[in-house]
Amino acid sequence: MRTVGWDNDAVKMIDQRALPWKLEFVRLETVEAVAESIRNMTVRGAPAIGAAAGFGITLAACQSQARAIDGLIDDLRLYGDLLKAARPTAVNLAWAVDQLLAIAASGEFRNPDDLRAVLLQAAQQIADDDVAINSRMGAHGATLINDGATVLHHCNTGALATVDYGTALGVIRAAFEGGKNIHVLLDETRPRLQGSRLSAWELEQLGINYDIIPDTAAGYYMQKGEVDIILVGADRVAANGDFANKIGTYQLAIMAQAHGIPFYTVAPTSTIDLCLGSGDLIPIEQRDAAEVTTPYGNPIVPAHFNARNPAFDVTPHRYLSGIVTEHGIARRPFRESLRRAVAGEAL
Amino acid sequence: MRTVGWDNDAVKMIDQRALPWKLEFVRLETVEAVAESIRNMTVRGAPAIGAAAGFGITLAACQSQARAIDGLIDDLRLYGDLLKAARPTAVNLAWAVDQLLAIAASGEFRNPDDLRAVLLQAAQQIADDDVAINSRMGAHGATLINDGATVLHHCNTGALATVDYGTALGVIRAAFEGGKNIHVLLDETRPRLQGSRLSAWELEQLGINYDIIPDTAAGYYMQKGEVDIILVGADRVAANGDFANKIGTYQLAIMAQAHGIPFYTVAPTSTIDLCLGSGDLIPIEQRDAAEVTTPYGNPIVPAHFNARNPAFDVTPHRYLSGIVTEHGIARRPFRESLRRAVAGEAL
Repeated sequence: MRTVGWDNDAVKMIDQRALPWKLEFVRLETVEAVAESIRNMTVRGAPAIGAAAGFGITLAACQSQARAIDGLIDDLRLYGDLLKAARPTAVNLAWAVDQLLAIAASGEFRNPDDLRAVLLQAAQQIADDDVAINSRMGAHGATLINDGATVLHHCNTGALATVDYGTALGVIRAAFEGGKNIHVLLDETRPRLQGSRLSAWELEQLGINYDIIPDTAAGYYMQKGEVDIILVGADRVAANGDFANKIGTYQLAIMAQAHGIPFYTVAPTSTIDLCLGSGDLIPIEQRDAAEVTTPYGNPIVPAHFNARNPAFDVTPHRYLSGIVTEHGIARRPFRESLRRAVAGEAL
Repeated sequence: MRTVGWDNDAVKMIDQRALPWKLEFVRLETVEAVAESIRNMTVRGAPAIGAAAGFGITLAACQSQARAIDGLIDDLRLYGDLLKAARPTAVNLAWAVDQLLAIAASGEFRNPDDLRAVLLQAAQQIADDDVAINSRMGAHGATLINDGATVLHHCNTGALATVDYGTALGVIRAAFEGGKNIHVLLDETRPRLQGSRLSAWELEQLGINYDIIPDTAAGYYMQKGEVDIILVGADRVAANGDFANKIGTYQLAIMAQAHGIPFYTVAPTSTIDLCLGSGDLIPIEQRDAAEVTTPYGNPIVPAHFNARNPAFDVTPHRYLSGIVTEHGIARRPFRESLRRAVAGEAL
């Protein structure tokens, strides 16, 4: 069961807004619908929205009425911009779109239908690769987790955040599947509550011990000495190792340093953006305040109350113990290790 | 309009669970009902539950069928234990009970009805004093806030957390009423959401600019340089300045230090417990996990999902810039300044 996949000329995905109550799939038949599914978080998680965007471009190629290759490429560029604009922070979205646009613009294709077929293969490859990459990150990262450890985790980085298996939660899963006894403290991760709604649901399926905690309690458990390691995902890693991730990650990093707790991000190389020298250049999405005041349709306060809702924050690289990639664990200096990881060298 | 008061042989209080939707009062006619109102957070906030406990002892004195003074004192001790057990962390509860028990045991009273009348006066005095003390803390603390400042605030420490006016929010109010332009970032304060439900409601009434933020976003705004000062309340301050406050306070203190932001607690001397040498001796209440998984009756996850719910944490004194009391601002060494404050010396 994949979070995002191709199904008879459509994109099929789990509607993550319905979890943990119902496991529902939606079928999207237009690229506009895929862009909207990314915007409204039907699908979320950097690798998952990358895969969704790949299939979205495939849909766009099918939708385009262009009979000549140049017309098709023009259409794909327009639809690519539409997809990229859906969410600005995670780079996997732009990465997947650009992978497919590069194939389209390679000059290898004269017949639009040939290109359409190849784009579907390439989108499928991105999805398949994601699962394989997560499995490799799991193997590398599991070495960081000791038997009996308590891992603190933020947001959702599991199978639902990817095509399957997960990044940070994939590392936890790999350690568990390797026979280690593990307990996970799940930050509930306001405002969207991905920790309680998605990560807890996944750990229930996997049979891994966990407790949901309010985001306010993370420091309390660190102070009590109950947290052995902190693992989070990433939406974009800059060349120097600074990284954007779900709001609340930055403060966990500060707390980790104050308590001497190892703090890692788990990020496939598709998340690494060597074009950005540092994290302060990463665009931070500001989402609707209603997600804070009326989570999932349940009003906490009257609609006219004021609220702010930044979706991500940036953690400076100095707080990081390392970055788990599919090629191994990048250590400082990150500018060097990340360049090697992106080049595919074993770390 | 007081949060807690005496009304014709009963305790009248705002039902804080109904806010921000409805301003409702409840009338409690037994000490058992007062204990339950503290336990279930109909009334909350360290000074407010202190005042409620004072009136609770008064109710207990009326309820007692004892005809001799010794029997009445025995009854008051039993009811005092009941009230103290309602919530263990905030010391104001025990402080208020012990104030009234000391009067009862003073040996000055022979006639139970004389004692009953004096206990009501004393409970009323505790409530009146609270309002006066908050006003004095407001005046002292307002000097810390510059015109144009953005103040970060956690939980609720306003009129609702006290008999009237507030502690940390009282300082903000005093600065505002003194003509300063102020913006307040309100941590929503999961799991009970006192920041969004109570503090935002109070600032709406007062016309003070605010934005509710998820607890995950506090570090983000500090990193952006948008936070000038952090003000919180306290449920118990130990002799060395360590203090217990609403869960999430400790991590704000760590972040404040990392960003060089002044961090103050605002605490009347009734909150200072010189009997405890340090904060690790403060009992921390663990509340029902359902407050995390099903806030205010709206389930986030199925009831069988695991969650933890520590209600308070302890912030070591080294993170504190100072403690605003009704006698002035206590600075380090806190062991000395707090002793003077409790003795009533001007700081």
